[in-house]
Amino acid sequence: MELLKNRIREEGRVKAGNILKVDSFLNHQMDISLFNEMGKEFSRLYAGEGVNKILTLEASGIGLAVITAQHFGNCPVIFAKKTKSKNLDGDLYLAQVTSFTRGNTFDIQVAKKYLDAGDRVLIIDDFLATGAALLGMVDIVAQSGAHLVGCGIVIEKGFQEGGSLLREQGVRVESLAIIKAFEGDQVIFAE
Amino acid sequence: MELLKNRIREEGRVKAGNILKVDSFLNHQMDISLFNEMGKEFSRLYAGEGVNKILTLEASGIGLAVITAQHFGNCPVIFAKKTKSKNLDGDLYLAQVTSFTRGNTFDIQVAKKYLDAGDRVLIIDDFLATGAALLGMVDIVAQSGAHLVGCGIVIEKGFQEGGSLLREQGVRVESLAIIKAFEGDQVIFAE
Repeated sequence: MELLKNRIREEGRVKAGNILKVDSFLNHQMDISLFNEMGKEFSRLYAGEGVNKILTLEASGIGLAVITAQHFGNCPVIFAKKTKSKNLDGDLYLAQVTSFTRGNTFDIQVAKKYLDAGDRVLIIDDFLATGAALLGMVDIVAQSGAHLVGCGIVIEKGFQEGGSLLREQGVRVESLAIIKAFEGDQVIFAE
Repeated sequence: MELLKNRIREEGRVKAGNILKVDSFLNHQMDISLFNEMGKEFSRLYAGEGVNKILTLEASGIGLAVITAQHFGNCPVIFAKKTKSKNLDGDLYLAQVTSFTRGNTFDIQVAKKYLDAGDRVLIIDDFLATGAALLGMVDIVAQSGAHLVGCGIVIEKGFQEGGSLLREQGVRVESLAIIKAFEGDQVIFAE
């Protein structure tokens, strides 16, 4: 998606450890017009798939997931939680995730009553790198018996294993920008 | 807002410790149509105030903040972060918050470059109870020199001190539903 790639070229900053900072428009300050363009693109990519629920992971996936839902008939969005909360009880689907950016391991949680075998689920997230968060969400969808339509990702680090791991499992992954490499402070996109 | 109060009456569940569970539409599964009605109501309440930025706190404020921004000319939304992340560096505004639902204390963080004296800020959050999260965000807006237009809250627990603490500071607080009390499993709203 050229609009997104141009924004990454203009505002993204490459930091040590293969970190790409896009906090000016994606995961701290959020550009709502850009989010709508991305949501529209996901709806084009997944048209006719009967998506009736969107699943994401707190926190930085939520904004895009909610905007994207507007392009799928205002379907409900569920955000998986990373920590136990008094706001969540009852039967839960659990999956273990290790975070690359935070360097810790935790269970992500979804209340069982919000996902079941009748659902057709689109997973939305901002980044795909090692794939840990996505694999956790894919696992939760499998536990629920719902049909996983696919994943909609903003930025995939194509030089890390997450995309391959998911696609080898037969999961459809649509990433709006795939990064082949960082060369110094330059972002090189895959064709 | 009657639409919201009816939804709380129908789906809200009162739990021990003055917890109101609204995870079917607000803070786990999210109802995007309802979010748009709430965003529209905030835009009516704060019409003419020149809001050019929305501030919220991860995670459960993000969805509503992003939808609400669409009713304020697609202004940028910033979500304050609760934990240190490799995605956040540089100069930060910090404020300390103690969470009622999680029972811990932490710093919330906003990168200085995204808020300054030229901004007119609306703070959006899902709940107002002790006011800790809101007071933290109000503090951050004050540090930045921006003008705080006010706060837009979904559910205020009117029997806790947060609303009074904020209003006594001269902060405008608009809550779409104010709860006077819980009586058994019933929610009693303020007039």
